[in-house]
Amino acid sequence: MRILSGMRPTGYLHLGHLCVLENWLELQKEHECFFFVADWHALTTEYENPRSIKEYTYAMVADWLAVGLDPEKSVIFVQSQVPAHAELHLIFSMFTPLSWLERVPTYKDQVRKLKALGKDITTYGFLGYPLLQAADILIYLAEGVPVGEDQLPHIELCREIARRFNYLYAPIFPEPQGILAEVKLVPGIDGQKMSKSYRNVIPLTASTEELAELVNRMVTDPARIHKHDPGHPEVCTVFQYHRIYQPERAKDIETACRRGEIGCVACKKDLAAVLDRRLAPIREKRAEILARPDYLREVLEEGKEKARAVANATLARVREALNL
Amino acid sequence: MRILSGMRPTGYLHLGHLCVLENWLELQKEHECFFFVADWHALTTEYENPRSIKEYTYAMVADWLAVGLDPEKSVIFVQSQVPAHAELHLIFSMFTPLSWLERVPTYKDQVRKLKALGKDITTYGFLGYPLLQAADILIYLAEGVPVGEDQLPHIELCREIARRFNYLYAPIFPEPQGILAEVKLVPGIDGQKMSKSYRNVIPLTASTEELAELVNRMVTDPARIHKHDPGHPEVCTVFQYHRIYQPERAKDIETACRRGEIGCVACKKDLAAVLDRRLAPIREKRAEILARPDYLREVLEEGKEKARAVANATLARVREALNL
Repeated sequence: MRILSGMRPTGYLHLGHLCVLENWLELQKEHECFFFVADWHALTTEYENPRSIKEYTYAMVADWLAVGLDPEKSVIFVQSQVPAHAELHLIFSMFTPLSWLERVPTYKDQVRKLKALGKDITTYGFLGYPLLQAADILIYLAEGVPVGEDQLPHIELCREIARRFNYLYAPIFPEPQGILAEVKLVPGIDGQKMSKSYRNVIPLTASTEELAELVNRMVTDPARIHKHDPGHPEVCTVFQYHRIYQPERAKDIETACRRGEIGCVACKKDLAAVLDRRLAPIREKRAEILARPDYLREVLEEGKEKARAVANATLARVREALNL
Repeated sequence: MRILSGMRPTGYLHLGHLCVLENWLELQKEHECFFFVADWHALTTEYENPRSIKEYTYAMVADWLAVGLDPEKSVIFVQSQVPAHAELHLIFSMFTPLSWLERVPTYKDQVRKLKALGKDITTYGFLGYPLLQAADILIYLAEGVPVGEDQLPHIELCREIARRFNYLYAPIFPEPQGILAEVKLVPGIDGQKMSKSYRNVIPLTASTEELAELVNRMVTDPARIHKHDPGHPEVCTVFQYHRIYQPERAKDIETACRRGEIGCVACKKDLAAVLDRRLAPIREKRAEILARPDYLREVLEEGKEKARAVANATLARVREALNL
């Protein structure tokens, strides 16, 4: 199966992204994968200040490679380096009813959410976001797209676009499936959703010391004052992390906490060590990658060529079908 | 001054277009001109049946050259052969408020008009029409755009886009001016607006015989039954043509008509001869052009290269300004 997925370069990656990337690693084992940095998509929210996009792009790809994405197996590239996406998006726009885009549930939600943060994204481009996504997917004739549940309507729209194109012109496009991965939701250190805008993230680049310090700041059971007090793991962020990162020991930790046999300080030290073991090999590989300044550029250059070859071949068929 | 203008390849050209082209010829004398076939724009209304666009494109360019557009002086090209338009359009979309597009007066008008003809164009692409136009214009850093009065709001939008880009990123774009030409409105043979959909056009390719036959079908003064009856030129389509195509004789014809000194048959014969003299050299030159099957292709190939060079240079500056 051909798979496509992407991430927007709007910040540095954190532990939440690692779960997504681990899912990508699984897909990479069995499928032909295209992974791309969605820098045009980043503009939908960052258009007022796009200057960091390039920095985030390189940092993101370094993380991808450090985690284990393999440019020998997968095509790794930057969206804006394949102009065919923009052309296919424009062609799709001509037969896509406005109402299809207006009714995508994420649209009004996101507009509202960002308005609350003081950002106005009621732009033409943001309304067309899922249409550009459809072009991203279909230009590679991708059949599977790993997504979160909230993105399923985008895949449904993509399928509608593919059907409409195939009906109007020529049966070129597959109808891609959303692949719902069991991606664990890692909470931020304050227990809320992990998000840059909440300043509660654990960066993927965190050093051993930074990890210790971030875990130290995690919110635990507020009712527990002395370390021999019985704890309530169900309200403790540290415990949620134990369940995700060492599920095999979670039961013992829970019991010890409830019995007041383990204090929060020790429990946090334990977690910091677990996270450090998880991130250490990534950290090491990233350092290797960044020590070879041309390597990233080469990976992206090669990915660009591979992506362009596939994208341009699709576009040639599209132009022929429309007789342009 | 650098000038840009285009036409949509949605049918064969007629006398109404000749007036526009004569205006282009004037501009070509004094300015650096870019003239393009707007085939992506054609998709906004023709997306359900785009297969004739290519045929209309070649016929249109043959007419342009036959009328006197000169590929040595002007850049003549097809929009879809310069993908940079699509990319700039996508980038513009990211910072263009939806409301700017929704309030363009032609938008709702056109949607309504085409709905009456059974065509639904409430698409994402049609809403973005003036944005694609802005990209068409600005990618060549054009400073002047010959337009009809109804298109002035599109130029105003283009200026707003240029200002917003220049303000957000870097001062790359000029603020183009609309050039209101004194283009005469040629009525159709039934006296209504000349338009393919009213089936009342005089094609630019009409032969001597076809001209005679079309002029013959023109609506004259219905109150005039015998040739010696006094006529009413103000309600006569033939007379409107005399005023446009031989203004120097119009006064005499008017007088003769009012006095019943010239009959409709003779008056129409006169007009057919005038139109034939006007179209004969174009007809001849078109025949020469079409006798060289590779010539059109070469013109468009060369135009494409010249257009791409300018467009890609602008796009490189845009990418740099956004740090993509």
